[in-house]
Amino acid sequence: MALNAKSPTMKQAADISDNGFFMQDILSVRQFNPENLTYIFHVADEMRTLVKRFGSADLLSGYLLANLFYEPSTRTASSFMAAMMRLGGSVIPINEVHYSSVSKGESLPDTIRTLESYADIIVLRHPEVGAAQIAADYASKPIINAGDGVGEHPTQALLDLYTIHRELGQLDGLKVAMVGDLKNGRTVHSLTRLLSRYNVEFYFVSPDILKLPPEMVAEVRARGHKAHEVEDVREVIAAVDVLYVTRVQKERFHDLAEYDRVKNHYIINPELMALAQERMALMHPLPRVGEISYGVDGDPRAAYFRQMENGMFIRMALLAAVLGKA
Amino acid sequence: MALNAKSPTMKQAADISDNGFFMQDILSVRQFNPENLTYIFHVADEMRTLVKRFGSADLLSGYLLANLFYEPSTRTASSFMAAMMRLGGSVIPINEVHYSSVSKGESLPDTIRTLESYADIIVLRHPEVGAAQIAADYASKPIINAGDGVGEHPTQALLDLYTIHRELGQLDGLKVAMVGDLKNGRTVHSLTRLLSRYNVEFYFVSPDILKLPPEMVAEVRARGHKAHEVEDVREVIAAVDVLYVTRVQKERFHDLAEYDRVKNHYIINPELMALAQERMALMHPLPRVGEISYGVDGDPRAAYFRQMENGMFIRMALLAAVLGKA
Amino acid sequence: MALNAKSPTMKQAADISDNGFFMQDILSVRQFNPENLTYIFHVADEMRTLVKRFGSADLLSGYLLANLFYEPSTRTASSFMAAMMRLGGSVIPINEVHYSSVSKGESLPDTIRTLESYADIIVLRHPEVGAAQIAADYASKPIINAGDGVGEHPTQALLDLYTIHRELGQLDGLKVAMVGDLKNGRTVHSLTRLLSRYNVEFYFVSPDILKLPPEMVAEVRARGHKAHEVEDVREVIAAVDVLYVTRVQKERFHDLAEYDRVKNHYIINPELMALAQERMALMHPLPRVGEISYGVDGDPRAAYFRQMENGMFIRMALLAAVLGKA
Repeated sequence: MALNAKSPTMKQAADISDNGFFMQDILSVRQFNPENLTYIFHVADEMRTLVKRFGSADLLSGYLLANLFYEPSTRTASSFMAAMMRLGGSVIPINEVHYSSVSKGESLPDTIRTLESYADIIVLRHPEVGAAQIAADYASKPIINAGDGVGEHPTQALLDLYTIHRELGQLDGLKVAMVGDLKNGRTVHSLTRLLSRYNVEFYFVSPDILKLPPEMVAEVRARGHKAHEVEDVREVIAAVDVLYVTRVQKERFHDLAEYDRVKNHYIINPELMALAQERMALMHPLPRVGEISYGVDGDPRAAYFRQMENGMFIRMALLAAVLGKA
Repeated sequence: MALNAKSPTMKQAADISDNGFFMQDILSVRQFNPENLTYIFHVADEMRTLVKRFGSADLLSGYLLANLFYEPSTRTASSFMAAMMRLGGSVIPINEVHYSSVSKGESLPDTIRTLESYADIIVLRHPEVGAAQIAADYASKPIINAGDGVGEHPTQALLDLYTIHRELGQLDGLKVAMVGDLKNGRTVHSLTRLLSRYNVEFYFVSPDILKLPPEMVAEVRARGHKAHEVEDVREVIAAVDVLYVTRVQKERFHDLAEYDRVKNHYIINPELMALAQERMALMHPLPRVGEISYGVDGDPRAAYFRQMENGMFIRMALLAAVLGKA
Repeated sequence: MALNAKSPTMKQAADISDNGFFMQDILSVRQFNPENLTYIFHVADEMRTLVKRFGSADLLSGYLLANLFYEPSTRTASSFMAAMMRLGGSVIPINEVHYSSVSKGESLPDTIRTLESYADIIVLRHPEVGAAQIAADYASKPIINAGDGVGEHPTQALLDLYTIHRELGQLDGLKVAMVGDLKNGRTVHSLTRLLSRYNVEFYFVSPDILKLPPEMVAEVRARGHKAHEVEDVREVIAAVDVLYVTRVQKERFHDLAEYDRVKNHYIINPELMALAQERMALMHPLPRVGEISYGVDGDPRAAYFRQMENGMFIRMALLAAVLGKA
């Protein structure tokens, strides 16, 4: 699928770069392939160096980001704000759209066209699947999808993949376990899709009622990957290079006896980590609510806070690339 | 009415400019006349050039704007933020005043005097008529009225007038139709007042129960303007240079049969636009809820999104002029 | 109590200064002594000069502050934002944590560790006592306590003390009256604690049911200070150098007849001020709700709006000192 090209409107003096990100919308993980992933990870590495050494840069000085969140997400909204500000840019935060002209019945396209008359790029979080695509259809400025309902959240998947790459130094040849609610987990779906571009063996660890949708398992296998479905994380902990943990919500269970039977199968604690390889990455998209015990936080394999920081670097890389300054 | 002069407190080194805007409050359209309008439109044109060519400037680098919104208005709040940021300034956004010290019973003057101890200029949106004047009475820093209830919203009227000037290249000699709820429409009242400074012929198009207040019609006629009151936009569409559309709300009607009878008289669609002059401007303060069909958006005469962008340029011009940097 | 030292993570190139504030958490007034207070007041004076002469500086250009408010406080939040922005830094405002991942059950330590992966310093307002200390225990970046329930609000106490120092040119040898609700007033407790480091005579003026906790009176006296407890501000108005007024809330009284009997004992009006010394400072942490009549605002001894401005200078000084740029 081709990136959805825009013609530059505000910043006509910027060079059209070769990398293919300039003035593109970032809507879906389907837009990414190993080649442009390698590129964006390389830029993210540069952003890390820049932040560690200088704190900030002025690459995007004078650029405005409209951070449009139709539903709250402190983590994602703050990460995009920090990314823009560390590049010297400014941010218009719009968090209370439920109070605003939207509540007077304004359509998403009209809101987007208003905001693009003020800003150079729009980050959109919306509760409905497809909202980011609709926004992109109407906008002449680039749109970055920061989550559209149960649809996509591509920057989350990118930061997850980047974290695996950073933690283990490779993507090909890994054994990756996805743990928890694999049925409803948007992050799991997107990351699985990205990882299936590489030579990866999958372990899907979940209660029976929260298994990965069969068509996704089939898709993974059709691409030639080994994919194991198991019910208890203890069955895989010793084998895997990556343990990607998500929450199992009690509310998903009709039969609470079943919940009580399985709930401890998906909790990571120091005893469990003692069984894991010495070199592996324990990840979580956060927030966590008990799935990973605090006792694990000091473990060098606990990668979830580095994962957060990587989110900022990936978003810096995307903002810079899309605005032609990478 | 004279502009309400302030003595500069923070930025004593700035030159007192000749244009009369330096350190003034912007409270009402009554402060404007063709001479200072021409000046501010000229500055807005410069701001447009600056944004199109460079994105931003650092004219207001180091200046702080307190963006104080007692009621939500994503559009206006974002426009002021963008304007300040594109001039290199910083913004303190204050949107949740209903949660804050105000809810502990603090008076508007105390809130204003607190904020002016932090910021260089205050933009105020408030649900009560006269709030901006009260704020200005107590503040030593300049206040810009961003809407005070059914009172004034001068920057909206300025951007509307600027858009007419931009779209048609002139203000004198035009035929302007105001359409929709002319009784309650603050924007219509302010724009009418500004336009009556020029040689303009007015068409007031509304349901009988939502007509322009008789004293405003009388005021317009007393200034020597032709003013026609009609009920259906089809009666005027072929004649006018400007069609300024506002919403007709069902809730205004006690008699729903009457609403059903007239509702289609105020909806602009491609069929209606086919009857309009080749050179004209279709405007709307937005948000729209059906008054202008999406099918019209591609029409070159549809000026409402350019109107939004003009809002940012006008606000940049006012901020720069008031802070002595225009 | 020693300042809670952090090792610098982001800004390794910054000089470690001698003053002891670099990379420290600011959690409690107990961290301060006359020596480091003199230092920080000196820096605050420099910040005042900087703002009056240039508006802003770029000392903290490229630095990010996460302004994390679990409960609303427009005044304090805006003051920290302004302080950071006037130093050239950027701010991530996080005001709606009740809507966000916190409402999904995330712990304060996880939220803090996420935000410190984006920002260089975190300002925290939280409704629970001890929250700032918990945040500091987990963070590797500095935490500034902007109020933790009925616990501490050290920057308020610092700005109060700085205001007394500015208004009267001295701290030793003063007679200071604390007026109003002395039982529940966090600001009164913290300021009393700071002032008891100096040679000060105290007057505690309150209704019987809202007296300063006996252990605090004992503590003040144990440090060798004279401390008078009286019921009516008229008994002390002529004697004192500082009148620090706080609100007496009707809701605190079980016996409304008692409230009616005493309520006028704590209201400051021009008649009362006529009895005060020519050189004295009338202070209030704001917001006020009738405790000081508007008629007093023009009195040169009314220091409460200067107190607000001093808050920005003190916070600028702390931010600069903690980030090693003072």
